[in-house]
Amino acid sequence: MKVEERLSQKKKAVDRELELILPEEDSPLFQAMRYAVLSGGKRFRPLLALSSGECFGVSQDVLLPFACALELIHNYSLIHDDLPSMDNDDFRRGKPSCHKAFGEDIALLAGAALLTLAFEVLVRAPVSANLQPQKEQLIIEIGHLAGVRGMIGGQLMDITLSPEELTEETMHELILKKTGALIVASVKTGGLLGKAGNSEFKAIVQYGRNIGLAFQIRDDILDSEGEERREKNLSPNYVSLFGNEVSEQRLKSFVGIARSALEETSLESEELHYLASKLLEWP
Amino acid sequence: MKVEERLSQKKKAVDRELELILPEEDSPLFQAMRYAVLSGGKRFRPLLALSSGECFGVSQDVLLPFACALELIHNYSLIHDDLPSMDNDDFRRGKPSCHKAFGEDIALLAGAALLTLAFEVLVRAPVSANLQPQKEQLIIEIGHLAGVRGMIGGQLMDITLSPEELTEETMHELILKKTGALIVASVKTGGLLGKAGNSEFKAIVQYGRNIGLAFQIRDDILDSEGEERREKNLSPNYVSLFGNEVSEQRLKSFVGIARSALEETSLESEELHYLASKLLEWP
Repeated sequence: MKVEERLSQKKKAVDRELELILPEEDSPLFQAMRYAVLSGGKRFRPLLALSSGECFGVSQDVLLPFACALELIHNYSLIHDDLPSMDNDDFRRGKPSCHKAFGEDIALLAGAALLTLAFEVLVRAPVSANLQPQKEQLIIEIGHLAGVRGMIGGQLMDITLSPEELTEETMHELILKKTGALIVASVKTGGLLGKAGNSEFKAIVQYGRNIGLAFQIRDDILDSEGEERREKNLSPNYVSLFGNEVSEQRLKSFVGIARSALEETSLESEELHYLASKLLEWP
Repeated sequence: MKVEERLSQKKKAVDRELELILPEEDSPLFQAMRYAVLSGGKRFRPLLALSSGECFGVSQDVLLPFACALELIHNYSLIHDDLPSMDNDDFRRGKPSCHKAFGEDIALLAGAALLTLAFEVLVRAPVSANLQPQKEQLIIEIGHLAGVRGMIGGQLMDITLSPEELTEETMHELILKKTGALIVASVKTGGLLGKAGNSEFKAIVQYGRNIGLAFQIRDDILDSEGEERREKNLSPNYVSLFGNEVSEQRLKSFVGIARSALEETSLESEELHYLASKLLEWP
Protein backbone atom coordinates (compact mmCIF):
# COMPACT_ATOMS: atom_id res chain seq x y z
CA MET A 1 0.00 0.00 0.00
CA LYS A 2 1.24 3.47 -0.78
CA VAL A 3 2.03 5.91 1.97
CA GLU A 4 -0.88 8.25 1.12
CA GLU A 5 -3.26 5.34 1.31
CA ARG A 6 -1.90 4.13 4.64
CA LEU A 7 -2.25 7.61 6.09
CA SER A 8 -5.74 7.95 4.70
CA GLN A 9 -6.71 4.66 6.36
CA LYS A 10 -5.28 5.90 9.64
CA LYS A 11 -7.26 9.13 9.32
CA LYS A 12 -10.42 7.11 8.76
CA ALA A 13 -9.73 5.04 11.86
CA VAL A 14 -9.30 8.23 13.87
CA ASP A 15 -12.53 9.70 12.53
CA ARG A 16 -14.41 6.50 13.36
CA GLU A 17 -13.04 6.49 16.90
CA LEU A 18 -13.89 10.16 17.41
CA GLU A 19 -17.46 9.41 16.33
CA LEU A 20 -17.64 6.74 19.01
CA ILE A 21 -16.19 9.07 21.64
CA LEU A 22 -18.65 11.83 20.72
CA PRO A 23 -22.00 10.14 20.08
CA GLU A 24 -24.88 12.15 18.71
CA GLU A 25 -27.13 13.49 21.46
CA ASP A 26 -29.98 15.90 21.70
CA SER A 27 -28.08 18.62 23.53
CA PRO A 28 -26.54 21.83 22.22
CA LEU A 29 -23.41 21.03 24.20
CA PHE A 30 -22.86 17.69 22.47
CA GLN A 31 -23.72 19.29 19.17
CA ALA A 32 -21.14 22.02 19.73
CA MET A 33 -18.50 19.45 20.69
CA ARG A 34 -19.26 17.36 17.61
CA TYR A 35 -19.37 20.45 15.41
CA ALA A 36 -15.91 21.50 16.54
CA VAL A 37 -14.28 18.08 16.35
CA LEU A 38 -16.04 16.27 13.53
CA SER A 39 -16.33 18.96 10.88
CA GLY A 40 -13.02 18.66 9.12
CA GLY A 41 -9.46 18.87 10.32
CA LYS A 42 -6.41 17.11 8.93
CA ARG A 43 -5.93 15.00 12.09
CA PHE A 44 -2.24 15.92 11.93
CA ARG A 45 -1.60 15.16 15.62
CA PRO A 46 -3.38 11.79 15.63
CA LEU A 47 -1.52 10.79 12.47
CA LEU A 48 1.79 11.70 14.10
CA ALA A 49 0.83 9.64 17.15
CA LEU A 50 -0.20 6.62 15.06
CA SER A 51 2.76 6.78 12.68
CA SER A 52 5.34 7.35 15.40
CA GLY A 53 3.85 4.50 17.41
CA GLU A 54 4.05 2.21 14.42
CA CYS A 55 7.80 2.94 14.17
CA PHE A 56 8.20 1.36 17.55
CA GLY A 57 5.87 -1.56 16.94
CA VAL A 58 2.81 -0.35 18.87
CA SER A 59 -0.52 -1.61 17.59
CA GLN A 60 -3.06 0.88 16.29
CA ASP A 61 -5.66 -0.28 18.82
CA VAL A 62 -3.43 0.76 21.68
CA LEU A 63 -2.57 4.10 20.08
CA LEU A 64 -6.03 5.23 18.98
CA PRO A 65 -7.41 6.52 22.30
CA PHE A 66 -4.27 8.59 22.87
CA ALA A 67 -4.35 9.90 19.28
CA CYS A 68 -8.00 10.92 19.69
CA ALA A 69 -7.43 12.55 23.07
CA LEU A 70 -4.75 14.73 21.47
CA GLU A 71 -7.24 15.76 18.81
CA LEU A 72 -9.83 16.60 21.50
CA ILE A 73 -7.28 18.80 23.29
CA HIS A 74 -6.33 20.47 20.01
CA ASN A 75 -9.97 21.24 19.26
CA TYR A 76 -10.75 22.56 22.74
CA SER A 77 -7.86 25.00 22.28
CA LEU A 78 -9.22 26.12 18.90
CA ILE A 79 -12.70 26.77 20.33
CA HIS A 80 -11.32 28.86 23.20
CA ASP A 81 -8.78 30.62 20.95
CA ASP A 82 -11.53 31.75 18.60
CA LEU A 83 -13.59 33.35 21.39
CA PRO A 84 -14.08 37.13 21.27
CA SER A 85 -11.90 37.71 24.33
CA MET A 86 -9.06 35.84 22.58
CA ASP A 87 -8.51 35.99 18.78
CA ASN A 88 -12.14 36.82 18.02
CA ASP A 89 -12.28 34.65 14.92
CA ASP A 90 -15.67 34.26 13.27
CA PHE A 91 -14.59 31.43 11.00
CA ARG A 92 -12.75 28.16 11.41
CA ARG A 93 -12.13 25.69 8.59
CA GLY A 94 -14.34 27.80 6.34
CA LYS A 95 -17.35 27.54 8.67
CA PRO A 96 -18.63 29.74 11.48
CA SER A 97 -16.48 29.21 14.55
CA CYS A 98 -18.06 27.32 17.46
CA HIS A 99 -19.22 30.41 19.37
CA LYS A 100 -20.65 31.91 16.19
CA ALA A 101 -22.68 28.75 15.64
CA PHE A 102 -23.68 28.00 19.26
CA GLY A 103 -23.10 31.14 21.30
CA GLU A 104 -20.19 32.09 23.52
CA ASP A 105 -21.48 30.36 26.63
CA ILE A 106 -21.98 27.00 24.96
CA ALA A 107 -18.62 27.31 23.17
CA LEU A 108 -16.88 27.98 26.47
CA LEU A 109 -18.48 24.90 28.03
CA ALA A 110 -17.83 22.77 24.93
CA GLY A 111 -14.13 23.62 25.08
CA ALA A 112 -13.84 22.74 28.76
CA ALA A 113 -15.89 19.60 28.16
CA LEU A 114 -13.55 18.43 25.37
CA LEU A 115 -10.54 18.98 27.61
CA THR A 116 -12.20 17.02 30.43
CA LEU A 117 -13.23 14.27 28.04
CA ALA A 118 -9.69 14.04 26.67
CA PHE A 119 -8.35 13.10 30.09
CA GLU A 120 -11.18 10.65 30.65
CA VAL A 121 -10.29 8.99 27.34
CA LEU A 122 -6.59 8.94 28.27
CA VAL A 123 -7.14 7.35 31.66
CA ARG A 124 -9.61 4.85 30.21
CA ALA A 125 -7.22 3.84 27.42
CA PRO A 126 -6.70 0.10 27.72
CA VAL A 127 -3.06 -1.01 27.77
CA SER A 128 -1.44 -4.22 28.94
CA ALA A 129 -0.08 -4.31 32.49
CA ASN A 130 3.52 -3.98 31.33
CA LEU A 131 2.67 -0.69 29.60
CA GLN A 132 0.94 0.82 32.62
CA PRO A 133 3.96 2.92 33.76
CA GLN A 134 4.46 4.27 30.22
CA LYS A 135 0.77 5.11 29.97
CA GLU A 136 0.91 7.03 33.24
CA GLN A 137 4.08 8.86 32.21
CA LEU A 138 2.50 9.73 28.87
CA ILE A 139 -0.66 11.21 30.44
CA ILE A 140 1.52 13.31 32.75
CA GLU A 141 3.53 14.49 29.71
CA ILE A 142 0.39 15.32 27.76
CA GLY A 143 -1.01 17.27 30.73
CA HIS A 144 2.28 19.09 31.10
CA LEU A 145 2.60 19.91 27.40
CA ALA A 146 -1.03 21.07 27.18
CA GLY A 147 -0.69 23.24 30.29
CA VAL A 148 0.99 26.42 31.52
CA ARG A 149 4.47 25.26 30.52
CA GLY A 150 3.27 24.19 27.10
CA MET A 151 0.30 25.07 24.92
CA ILE A 152 -1.47 27.40 27.36
CA GLY A 153 1.86 29.10 28.10
CA GLY A 154 2.22 29.72 24.36
CA GLN A 155 -1.26 31.19 24.17
CA LEU A 156 -0.32 33.47 27.04
CA MET A 157 2.78 34.65 25.14
CA ASP A 158 0.59 35.21 22.12
CA ILE A 159 -1.69 37.61 23.96
CA THR A 160 0.82 39.31 26.24
CA LEU A 161 4.05 39.86 24.28
CA SER A 162 4.41 43.37 22.89
CA PRO A 163 5.57 43.73 19.28
CA GLU A 164 9.05 44.83 20.45
CA GLU A 165 9.42 41.63 22.45
CA LEU A 166 8.78 39.48 19.39
CA THR A 167 12.32 38.58 18.40
CA GLU A 168 13.23 35.44 16.51
CA GLU A 169 14.01 33.78 19.82
CA THR A 170 10.72 34.60 21.54
CA MET A 171 8.77 33.80 18.38
CA HIS A 172 10.32 30.34 18.23
CA GLU A 173 9.61 29.82 21.91
CA LEU A 174 6.03 30.94 21.37
CA ILE A 175 5.52 28.54 18.47
CA LEU A 176 7.23 25.67 20.26
CA LYS A 177 4.78 26.11 23.12
CA LYS A 178 1.59 27.12 21.41
CA THR A 179 1.79 24.71 18.48
CA GLY A 180 4.86 22.58 19.09
CA ALA A 181 3.99 21.26 22.53
CA LEU A 182 1.00 19.22 21.41
CA ILE A 183 2.85 18.02 18.32
CA VAL A 184 5.73 16.87 20.51
CA ALA A 185 3.15 15.18 22.77
CA SER A 186 1.88 13.35 19.67
CA VAL A 187 5.24 11.86 18.72
CA LYS A 188 6.05 11.15 22.37
CA THR A 189 2.89 9.03 22.39
CA GLY A 190 4.55 6.67 19.94
CA GLY A 191 7.92 6.84 21.62
CA LEU A 192 6.69 6.19 25.15
CA LEU A 193 4.16 3.47 24.36
CA GLY A 194 6.78 1.88 22.08
CA LYS A 195 9.40 2.00 24.85
CA ALA A 196 11.81 3.76 22.49
CA GLY A 197 15.47 3.73 23.45
CA ASN A 198 17.13 6.92 24.59
CA SER A 199 18.57 8.06 21.28
CA GLU A 200 15.48 7.10 19.31
CA PHE A 201 13.28 8.95 21.79
CA LYS A 202 15.46 12.04 21.47
CA ALA A 203 15.29 11.77 17.68
CA ILE A 204 11.52 11.55 17.60
CA VAL A 205 11.23 14.55 19.92
CA GLN A 206 13.68 16.48 17.74
CA TYR A 207 11.52 15.54 14.76
CA GLY A 208 8.41 16.74 16.62
CA ARG A 209 9.86 20.08 17.67
CA ASN A 210 10.96 20.90 14.15
CA ILE A 211 7.76 19.70 12.57
CA GLY A 212 5.95 21.93 15.05
CA LEU A 213 7.96 24.98 14.00
CA ALA A 214 7.54 24.14 10.31
CA PHE A 215 3.81 23.53 10.71
CA GLN A 216 3.17 26.94 12.27
CA ILE A 217 5.39 28.83 9.83
CA ARG A 218 3.64 27.16 6.92
CA ASP A 219 0.30 28.09 8.47
CA ASP A 220 1.46 31.66 8.80
CA ILE A 221 2.65 31.79 5.18
CA LEU A 222 -0.69 30.46 3.94
CA ASP A 223 -2.66 32.66 6.26
CA SER A 224 -0.61 35.75 6.09
CA GLU A 225 -1.23 38.65 4.05
CA GLY A 226 1.19 40.65 6.22
CA GLU A 227 -0.39 43.89 5.10
CA GLU A 228 -3.87 42.77 5.96
CA ARG A 229 -2.79 41.62 9.42
CA ARG A 230 -1.36 45.02 10.22
CA GLU A 231 -4.50 46.70 8.97
CA LYS A 232 -6.69 44.44 11.06
CA ASN A 233 -4.43 44.92 14.09
CA LEU A 234 -3.94 41.20 14.39
CA SER A 235 -1.04 39.96 16.47
CA PRO A 236 2.07 39.59 14.30
CA ASN A 237 2.78 36.21 12.77
CA TYR A 238 5.98 34.73 11.39
CA VAL A 239 5.61 36.28 7.96
CA SER A 240 4.65 39.75 9.13
CA LEU A 241 7.72 39.68 11.39
CA PHE A 242 10.38 38.15 9.18
CA GLY A 243 9.03 38.39 5.65
CA ASN A 244 8.01 35.77 3.14
CA GLU A 245 11.44 34.81 1.93
CA VAL A 246 12.95 34.19 5.34
CA SER A 247 9.82 32.32 6.39
CA GLU A 248 10.03 29.95 3.44
CA GLN A 249 13.72 29.34 4.06
CA ARG A 250 13.05 28.54 7.69
CA LEU A 251 10.20 26.25 6.81
CA LYS A 252 12.49 24.24 4.53
CA SER A 253 15.23 24.23 7.08
CA PHE A 254 13.03 22.95 9.92
CA VAL A 255 11.58 20.22 7.74
CA GLY A 256 15.14 19.29 6.82
CA ILE A 257 16.22 19.05 10.46
CA ALA A 258 13.15 16.99 11.29
CA ARG A 259 13.91 14.49 8.53
CA SER A 260 17.60 14.32 9.42
CA ALA A 261 16.68 13.47 12.99
CA LEU A 262 14.87 10.39 11.70
CA GLU A 263 17.69 9.44 9.34
CA GLU A 264 20.48 9.80 11.85
CA THR A 265 18.96 7.23 14.15
CA SER A 266 17.76 5.06 11.27
CA LEU A 267 14.17 5.48 12.39
CA GLU A 268 12.43 4.15 9.36
CA SER A 269 9.06 5.68 8.79
CA GLU A 270 7.94 6.55 5.33
CA GLU A 271 4.88 8.13 6.90
CA LEU A 272 6.75 10.48 9.20
CA HIS A 273 8.96 11.54 6.28
CA TYR A 274 5.90 12.04 4.14
CA LEU A 275 4.09 14.12 6.79
CA ALA A 276 7.19 16.32 7.07
CA SER A 277 7.61 16.74 3.31
CA LYS A 278 3.94 17.55 2.86
CA LEU A 279 4.58 20.76 4.78
CA LEU A 280 6.63 21.97 1.80
CA GLU A 281 3.75 21.55 -0.66
CA TRP A 282 1.27 24.28 -1.44
CA PRO A 283 -1.36 24.88 -0.44
CA MET B 1 -8.77 16.99 69.58
CA LYS B 2 -12.12 18.52 68.87
CA VAL B 3 -13.79 18.11 65.50
CA GLU B 4 -13.43 21.80 64.55
CA GLU B 5 -9.74 21.63 65.29
CA ARG B 6 -9.24 18.47 63.28
CA LEU B 7 -11.04 20.02 60.31
CA SER B 8 -9.05 23.20 60.66
CA GLN B 9 -5.81 21.20 60.56
CA LYS B 10 -7.01 19.40 57.47
CA LYS B 11 -7.81 22.73 55.83
CA LYS B 12 -4.32 23.95 56.60
CA ALA B 13 -2.81 20.83 55.06
CA VAL B 14 -4.87 21.44 51.91
CA ASP B 15 -3.80 25.08 51.74
CA ARG B 16 -0.14 24.11 52.15
CA GLU B 17 -0.42 21.52 49.40
CA LEU B 18 -2.17 23.96 47.06
CA GLU B 19 0.68 26.44 47.63
CA LEU B 20 3.13 23.76 46.53
CA ILE B 21 1.05 22.90 43.47
CA LEU B 22 0.79 26.56 42.47
CA PRO B 23 4.18 28.14 43.15
CA GLU B 24 4.62 31.88 42.80
CA GLU B 25 5.89 32.86 39.37
CA ASP B 26 6.36 36.04 37.46
CA SER B 27 3.56 35.47 34.99
CA PRO B 28 0.04 36.90 34.92
CA LEU B 29 -1.27 33.41 34.21
CA PHE B 30 0.23 31.94 37.39
CA GLN B 31 -0.88 34.99 39.30
CA ALA B 32 -4.44 34.57 38.05
CA MET B 33 -4.43 30.87 38.95
CA ARG B 34 -3.11 31.63 42.44
CA TYR B 35 -5.54 34.51 42.85
CA ALA B 36 -8.48 32.26 42.08
CA VAL B 37 -7.41 29.29 44.18
CA LEU B 38 -5.49 30.75 47.11
CA SER B 39 -7.62 33.73 48.05
CA GLY B 40 -10.15 32.16 50.35
CA GLY B 41 -12.57 29.33 49.94
CA LYS B 42 -13.86 26.94 52.56
CA ARG B 43 -12.17 23.92 50.95
CA PHE B 44 -15.44 22.07 51.38
CA ARG B 45 -14.65 19.48 48.69
CA PRO B 46 -11.11 18.72 49.91
CA LEU B 47 -12.42 18.37 53.47
CA LEU B 48 -15.07 15.91 52.31
CA ALA B 49 -12.40 13.93 50.47
CA LEU B 50 -10.05 13.86 53.48
CA SER B 51 -12.76 13.11 56.03
CA SER B 52 -14.43 10.43 53.96
CA GLY B 53 -11.04 8.84 53.25
CA GLU B 54 -10.27 8.79 56.94
CA CYS B 55 -13.49 6.82 57.56
CA PHE B 56 -12.02 4.05 55.47
CA GLY B 57 -8.53 4.22 56.91
CA VAL B 58 -6.78 6.05 54.05
CA SER B 59 -3.79 8.15 55.10
CA GLN B 60 -3.89 11.90 54.53
CA ASP B 61 -0.76 11.79 52.36
CA VAL B 62 -2.49 9.55 49.88
CA LEU B 63 -5.67 11.65 49.87
CA LEU B 64 -4.17 15.14 49.59
CA PRO B 65 -3.38 15.25 45.85
CA PHE B 66 -6.91 14.07 45.03
CA ALA B 67 -8.42 16.56 47.48
CA CYS B 68 -6.43 19.39 45.91
CA ALA B 69 -7.25 18.37 42.35
CA LEU B 70 -10.95 18.57 43.25
CA GLU B 71 -10.39 22.09 44.55
CA LEU B 72 -8.57 23.04 41.32
CA ILE B 73 -11.50 21.76 39.26
CA HIS B 74 -13.96 23.62 41.50
CA ASN B 75 -12.02 26.86 41.04
CA TYR B 76 -11.65 26.51 37.28
CA SER B 77 -15.43 26.19 37.11
CA LEU B 78 -15.90 29.33 39.22
CA ILE B 79 -13.55 31.37 36.97
CA HIS B 80 -15.35 30.29 33.81
CA ASP B 81 -18.79 30.65 35.42
CA ASP B 82 -18.07 34.25 36.37
CA LEU B 83 -17.12 35.26 32.80
CA PRO B 84 -19.32 37.82 31.05
CA SER B 85 -20.66 35.25 28.57
CA MET B 86 -21.79 33.08 31.52
CA ASP B 87 -23.03 34.59 34.82
CA ASN B 88 -21.15 37.86 34.36
CA ASP B 89 -20.20 38.15 38.01
CA ASP B 90 -17.85 40.97 38.94
CA PHE B 91 -17.20 39.68 42.44
CA ARG B 92 -16.23 36.37 44.00
CA ARG B 93 -15.58 35.86 47.71
CA GLY B 94 -15.86 39.62 48.20
CA LYS B 95 -13.06 40.40 45.74
CA PRO B 96 -13.07 41.20 42.03
CA SER B 97 -13.63 38.01 40.06
CA CYS B 98 -10.66 36.63 38.13
CA HIS B 99 -11.52 38.26 34.80
CA LYS B 100 -12.13 41.59 36.54
CA ALA B 101 -8.68 41.40 38.09
CA PHE B 102 -6.74 39.93 35.14
CA GLY B 103 -8.84 40.38 32.02
CA GLU B 104 -11.11 37.95 30.25
CA ASP B 105 -8.42 36.36 28.12
CA ILE B 106 -6.14 35.55 31.05
CA ALA B 107 -9.11 34.31 33.11
CA LEU B 108 -10.15 31.99 30.31
CA LEU B 109 -6.63 30.55 30.08
CA ALA B 110 -6.29 30.35 33.88
CA GLY B 111 -9.46 28.28 34.09
CA ALA B 112 -8.35 25.85 31.40
CA ALA B 113 -4.90 25.70 32.99
CA LEU B 114 -6.35 24.77 36.39
CA LEU B 115 -8.42 22.02 34.81
CA THR B 116 -5.36 20.67 32.97
CA LEU B 117 -3.26 20.91 36.12
CA ALA B 118 -5.91 19.06 38.11
CA PHE B 119 -5.55 16.01 35.87
CA GLU B 120 -1.77 16.23 35.98
CA VAL B 121 -1.98 16.23 39.78
CA LEU B 122 -4.40 13.30 39.74
CA VAL B 123 -2.27 11.14 37.46
CA ARG B 124 0.92 12.03 39.39
CA ALA B 125 -0.70 11.17 42.74
CA PRO B 126 1.48 8.52 44.36
CA VAL B 127 -0.36 5.43 45.55
CA SER B 128 0.86 1.96 46.35
CA ALA B 129 0.66 -0.66 43.63
CA ASN B 130 -2.37 -2.35 45.18
CA LEU B 131 -4.31 0.93 44.96
CA GLN B 132 -3.47 1.53 41.31
CA PRO B 133 -6.81 0.19 39.95
CA GLN B 134 -8.79 2.29 42.46
CA LYS B 135 -6.76 5.37 41.53
CA GLU B 136 -7.49 4.83 37.85
CA GLN B 137 -11.19 4.26 38.50
CA LEU B 138 -11.30 7.38 40.66
CA ILE B 139 -9.72 9.60 37.99
CA ILE B 140 -12.22 8.28 35.45
CA GLU B 141 -15.05 9.03 37.92
CA ILE B 142 -13.77 12.53 38.58
CA GLY B 143 -13.47 13.20 34.83
CA HIS B 144 -16.96 11.87 34.32
CA LEU B 145 -18.48 13.86 37.18
CA ALA B 146 -16.71 17.06 36.09
CA GLY B 147 -17.78 16.61 32.46
CA VAL B 148 -20.86 16.74 30.26
CA ARG B 149 -22.78 14.20 32.35
CA GLY B 150 -21.88 16.01 35.56
CA MET B 151 -20.79 19.53 36.41
CA ILE B 152 -20.60 20.91 32.88
CA GLY B 153 -23.96 19.31 32.11
CA GLY B 154 -25.38 21.18 35.11
CA GLN B 155 -23.92 24.46 33.87
CA LEU B 156 -25.55 23.77 30.54
CA MET B 157 -28.94 23.26 32.22
CA ASP B 158 -28.36 26.48 34.12
CA ILE B 159 -27.96 28.52 30.94
CA THR B 160 -30.43 26.74 28.70
CA LEU B 161 -33.50 25.81 30.75
CA SER B 162 -36.37 28.23 30.37
CA PRO B 163 -38.20 29.36 33.54
CA GLU B 164 -41.17 27.11 32.69
CA GLU B 165 -38.89 24.09 32.56
CA LEU B 166 -37.62 24.71 36.08
CA THR B 167 -39.73 22.29 38.06
CA GLU B 168 -38.67 20.76 41.33
CA GLU B 169 -37.45 17.74 39.45
CA THR B 170 -35.30 19.60 36.92
CA MET B 171 -34.01 21.93 39.62
CA HIS B 172 -32.83 18.98 41.69
CA GLU B 173 -31.23 17.43 38.63
CA LEU B 174 -29.53 20.73 37.86
CA ILE B 175 -28.13 21.05 41.38
CA LEU B 176 -27.08 17.42 41.54
CA LYS B 177 -25.05 17.96 38.39
CA LYS B 178 -23.78 21.50 38.74
CA THR B 179 -22.90 21.33 42.43
CA GLY B 180 -23.54 17.78 43.53
CA ALA B 181 -21.35 15.99 41.01
CA LEU B 182 -18.07 17.36 42.33
CA ILE B 183 -19.21 16.86 45.93
CA VAL B 184 -20.06 13.25 45.15
CA ALA B 185 -16.64 12.93 43.49
CA SER B 186 -15.12 14.18 46.76
CA VAL B 187 -16.72 11.53 48.95
CA LYS B 188 -16.09 8.86 46.31
CA THR B 189 -12.41 9.75 46.65
CA GLY B 190 -12.50 8.43 50.19
CA GLY B 191 -14.69 5.48 49.33
CA LEU B 192 -12.68 4.28 46.36
CA LEU B 193 -9.20 4.78 47.81
CA GLY B 194 -10.45 3.17 51.03
CA LYS B 195 -11.87 0.20 49.14
CA ALA B 196 -15.23 0.69 50.82
CA GLY B 197 -17.62 -2.23 50.73
CA ASN B 198 -20.73 -2.03 48.59
CA SER B 199 -23.19 -0.80 51.18
CA GLU B 200 -20.74 1.64 52.70
CA PHE B 201 -19.91 3.02 49.29
CA LYS B 202 -23.59 3.49 48.53
CA ALA B 203 -24.06 5.22 51.88
CA ILE B 204 -21.23 7.66 51.30
CA VAL B 205 -22.56 8.49 47.83
CA GLN B 206 -26.03 8.99 49.30
CA TYR B 207 -24.47 11.29 51.88
CA GLY B 208 -22.66 13.19 49.10
CA ARG B 209 -25.74 13.65 46.92
CA ASN B 210 -27.79 15.03 49.78
CA ILE B 211 -24.99 17.24 51.06
CA GLY B 212 -24.69 18.57 47.51
CA LEU B 213 -28.38 19.46 47.38
CA ALA B 214 -28.27 20.99 50.86
CA PHE B 215 -25.11 22.95 50.07
CA GLN B 216 -26.62 24.61 47.01
CA ILE B 217 -29.97 25.36 48.63
CA ARG B 218 -28.18 26.96 51.58
CA ASP B 219 -26.10 29.00 49.15
CA ASP B 220 -29.26 30.11 47.39
CA ILE B 221 -30.91 31.08 50.69
CA LEU B 222 -27.88 33.15 51.70
CA ASP B 223 -27.50 34.63 48.28
CA SER B 224 -31.07 35.12 47.37
CA GLU B 225 -32.95 38.18 47.54
CA GLY B 226 -35.58 36.70 45.27
CA GLU B 227 -36.81 40.13 44.32
CA GLU B 228 -33.41 41.39 43.42
CA ARG B 229 -32.73 38.34 41.24
CA ARG B 230 -35.86 38.95 39.22
CA GLU B 231 -35.00 42.61 38.86
CA LYS B 232 -31.50 41.80 37.67
CA ASN B 233 -32.83 39.14 35.34
CA LEU B 234 -30.66 36.51 36.96
CA SER B 235 -31.50 32.89 36.37
CA PRO B 236 -33.88 31.64 39.05
CA ASN B 237 -32.44 29.95 42.11
CA TYR B 238 -34.01 27.61 44.63
CA VAL B 239 -35.49 30.37 46.77
CA SER B 240 -36.87 32.45 43.93
CA LEU B 241 -38.56 29.30 42.63
CA PHE B 242 -39.90 27.69 45.80
CA GLY B 243 -39.79 30.39 48.44
CA ASN B 244 -37.81 30.73 51.63
CA GLU B 245 -39.87 28.45 53.80
CA VAL B 246 -39.86 25.49 51.47
CA SER B 247 -36.14 26.01 50.83
CA GLU B 248 -35.32 25.90 54.52
CA GLN B 249 -37.44 22.78 55.01
CA ARG B 250 -35.69 21.06 52.13
CA LEU B 251 -32.28 22.07 53.40
CA LYS B 252 -33.04 20.45 56.76
CA SER B 253 -34.49 17.41 55.13
CA PHE B 254 -31.48 16.82 52.84
CA VAL B 255 -29.06 17.24 55.72
CA GLY B 256 -31.15 14.74 57.65
CA ILE B 257 -31.05 12.18 54.86
CA ALA B 258 -27.29 12.66 54.50
CA ARG B 259 -26.72 12.01 58.21
CA SER B 260 -29.06 9.03 58.24
CA ALA B 261 -27.13 7.47 55.40
CA LEU B 262 -24.02 7.52 57.59
CA GLU B 263 -25.88 6.20 60.61
CA GLU B 264 -27.63 3.37 58.86
CA THR B 265 -24.35 1.81 57.80
CA SER B 266 -22.60 2.72 61.06
CA LEU B 267 -20.10 4.85 59.16
CA GLU B 268 -18.57 6.68 62.05
CA SER B 269 -17.29 10.07 61.16
CA GLU B 270 -17.77 12.95 63.51
CA GLU B 271 -16.32 15.17 60.80
CA LEU B 272 -18.78 14.18 58.09
CA HIS B 273 -21.65 14.67 60.54
CA TYR B 274 -20.23 18.03 61.53
CA LEU B 275 -19.80 19.20 57.91
CA ALA B 276 -23.42 18.25 57.26
CA SER B 277 -24.77 19.97 60.37
CA LYS B 278 -22.76 23.11 59.64
CA LEU B 279 -25.00 23.62 56.61
CA LEU B 280 -27.85 24.35 59.01
CA GLU B 281 -26.02 27.18 60.75
CA TRP B 282 -26.23 30.78 59.65
CA PRO B 283 -24.62 32.42 58.00
